[in-house]
Amino acid sequence: MDISTVNALTYEEFVELFGNVVEKCPIISAAIWSHRPFKDLTDIEAHITEFIHSLSDSGKEGILRCHPDLAGRDLQSGTLTRESREEQSQAGMTTLDSAEILLMHRLNSEYKERFGFPFVICARLNNKADIVRLLSERLKNDRAAERELAIEEVKKICSLRLHNIVLSGIQTKL
Amino acid sequence: MDISTVNALTYEEFVELFGNVVEKCPIISAAIWSHRPFKDLTDIEAHITEFIHSLSDSGKEGILRCHPDLAGRDLQSGTLTRESREEQSQAGMTTLDSAEILLMHRLNSEYKERFGFPFVICARLNNKADIVRLLSERLKNDRAAERELAIEEVKKICSLRLHNIVLSGIQTKL
Repeated sequence: MDISTVNALTYEEFVELFGNVVEKCPIISAAIWSHRPFKDLTDIEAHITEFIHSLSDSGKEGILRCHPDLAGRDLQSGTLTRESREEQSQAGMTTLDSAEILLMHRLNSEYKERFGFPFVICARLNNKADIVRLLSERLKNDRAAERELAIEEVKKICSLRLHNIVLSGIQTKL
Repeated sequence: MDISTVNALTYEEFVELFGNVVEKCPIISAAIWSHRPFKDLTDIEAHITEFIHSLSDSGKEGILRCHPDLAGRDLQSGTLTRESREEQSQAGMTTLDSAEILLMHRLNSEYKERFGFPFVICARLNNKADIVRLLSERLKNDRAAERELAIEEVKKICSLRLHNIVLSGIQTKL
């Protein structure tokens, strides 16, 4: 899909296609549609980043709270978004043994108790061992540092989802 | 449900309960959870209003673009959120005859073509005749005025949804 195809989308088509590049935050793609025409994919990413950085600390925490736990309830009950399911699967979260599931549950709970938002990491760029290690390490951060670090992960997830849509869009979506 | 019950909710419970008070924008309830404890329902509404008004014009348009058309594709295909379905039903949008459906379709299309976002109105406070009349009238506004007017409707919808959850929550949710 080239950028002229993206720029020709109605807002409904655009939100349908890009609405989940930031997990469960279709408002973000819906908002940046106002900035068409986009020069390229980097320009779309820049507008998304601008939107995210314009939010207050609580707004950024709002984005994080729209994310599911890794190897958590939504994975067990089959209620993950398609994108999250694929990412968690790729990072090995769907094939944990029962001890690993319990460990993830304990670490996720500690993290949420400490920060008031879930542990967010770009699962496509980390394997199972990385995730457990980083979750344990990041538990030691203070809330402000951890919020910023998690938002950087949101931007990595978003970038990979965007590229995935635009590349696969050539064959399937449009 | 009294306010102490609301203040005792985890962010996951809070977002599950209040996540759709602004249509398809769970980020908003997820963000304002940071401001607990809330004094009362008015305080929750004030934080939501503050979040909405802190957004840029494109951010506000993003909220509007997360709304479905009235008597539109999502109603026909059964993909409305539960809240929207109930509201559209109450305003008579589910029992239109074919001429009325065509009229709504034409007016919605003209509106979206002109403004780049869908016509948003608090359906619970308007009947079928009001909706058709106001949709025709508001088509004559300029984009900035219409954006602000539509955001005021979003706030009315949000207020009624909030009250509905807290009242019905006594019996069902908690």
